[in-house]
Amino acid sequence: MAVPAINSESATALPIGVFDSGVGGLTVLRALRQRLPHEQFIYLGDTARLPYGTKSGDSVLRYSLQAAEFLARQRIKSLVIACNTASSVAVEPLRERFAIPVIGVIEPGSIAGCAASRTGYIAVLATEGTVRGGAYQRAITRLRPDAHVIARACSLFVALAEEGWTEGAIAEAIAHRYVDELLRSEPSIDTLLLGCTHFPVLASALRAVIGSSITIVDSAATTATAVEAELRDRRLLNVSHRVSPPILQATDSPERFARVGSRFLGESFDATQVELVDLSPTLQV
Amino acid sequence: MAVPAINSESATALPIGVFDSGVGGLTVLRALRQRLPHEQFIYLGDTARLPYGTKSGDSVLRYSLQAAEFLARQRIKSLVIACNTASSVAVEPLRERFAIPVIGVIEPGSIAGCAASRTGYIAVLATEGTVRGGAYQRAITRLRPDAHVIARACSLFVALAEEGWTEGAIAEAIAHRYVDELLRSEPSIDTLLLGCTHFPVLASALRAVIGSSITIVDSAATTATAVEAELRDRRLLNVSHRVSPPILQATDSPERFARVGSRFLGESFDATQVELVDLSPTLQV
Repeated sequence: MAVPAINSESATALPIGVFDSGVGGLTVLRALRQRLPHEQFIYLGDTARLPYGTKSGDSVLRYSLQAAEFLARQRIKSLVIACNTASSVAVEPLRERFAIPVIGVIEPGSIAGCAASRTGYIAVLATEGTVRGGAYQRAITRLRPDAHVIARACSLFVALAEEGWTEGAIAEAIAHRYVDELLRSEPSIDTLLLGCTHFPVLASALRAVIGSSITIVDSAATTATAVEAELRDRRLLNVSHRVSPPILQATDSPERFARVGSRFLGESFDATQVELVDLSPTLQV
Repeated sequence: MAVPAINSESATALPIGVFDSGVGGLTVLRALRQRLPHEQFIYLGDTARLPYGTKSGDSVLRYSLQAAEFLARQRIKSLVIACNTASSVAVEPLRERFAIPVIGVIEPGSIAGCAASRTGYIAVLATEGTVRGGAYQRAITRLRPDAHVIARACSLFVALAEEGWTEGAIAEAIAHRYVDELLRSEPSIDTLLLGCTHFPVLASALRAVIGSSITIVDSAATTATAVEAELRDRRLLNVSHRVSPPILQATDSPERFARVGSRFLGESFDATQVELVDLSPTLQV
């Protein structure tokens, strides 16, 4: 499906599409809304097929193409892949397919990690799929060839974040188990990059475990900065001063999306504000 | 898709289809192979769309129909739904659609729970989807109208089992958090029914938490008994004395299926023994 480049005057008023495997990307949407309060966002969570983090690259790429095409059919001026696993495999294929700006979270996250690190020893905590794909390792060493990147899959963090057990003894015990050996094996690590959009809600448990000398960074704020820069370059920033609530769409269970997602967005919303959608092209007009 | 009833002599040699959302159902396959060592099994794990436990009933039913049709195309004499969430929504629709015996895990699990309980107070630990659907609550009170069923969703158990952290302090802390309040609120509970095929690998952590006076039951062994009885009734038991390894199929990541699944099957296998399959009918001959 070819989508023409957007260059008309009215394009500035078009929404920005944001997609994720589920609710984790709402941490990115939150940062985007803080940075770009006058933009209209359409957020799509592919909750029918979450999580992406334990799936193969081929499956994640196929799902990402379907999600992007679904959003493109709604006329968007830019696409944000607010999922690390999807960003790690789909940014380039989506840029080839769509003429609008496509921004993932890996590149901005890597920029934030490199900027924060003095020693160049950067630990990346992510899902199995993101670690296996090696996208952070490549992006960081491209930005900073002398960097040492140590990546660790922390699968249980996703379930922990979704269950809402983000603080306390259990969260800290799990964080200890994932990071202690990592930090012991490489004492020069001074930066912990959260390479999964679920993980920012666990930041205070991680802080309790790693102490104060290591910087924790995530890609949400830098992704918002990157989106703003890209839209400004292309003269696509919305010139209106209206503030609109985001349009929220999910492929399964609006009730669960609202219940679990409110924690990630940082504000409460209910299932009536979530549209249940089907990504199958045959069901779309 | 209509599948004709099987009643020819040669039908006894056909395989038994077993499906699950992923690897958890391998605990059921293990029990089936122990009970029915001369049967050929085809196990299908829908790893591209796992987990089912947090998805809506509509999505799980759709996925189950696709999985069942995929197995039916391979000519099977019986279908076992080795996933509690899928059993809770799909047993009846699949029985209407297919002429072969269809056996889920909810009914056998409920029979085991009722048989084990003296007081009639039965706690069911399951996924969000299974608890929300209420299938165990209905099945148990149908078998034993005076029973008191207390169901609790234990979402983190799935991730814990897949990560392989099945024993030790973290597993026990999580088990405490899920069951302590349950047991305190209802001291007459004498039976803990594991209503998710992932949970049997956590049995020893649960045992450490609940003490020795409560019976832990799961549906794997009783499901195997139910399958044997059904095949005997229909004269479909395999009369050969050959022992064949199961055919293992997954919709995503054979490598992960083998790595994580070996723990559930109770014996080691590798990715070369797992066939990657696509459930889309258009890709099947």
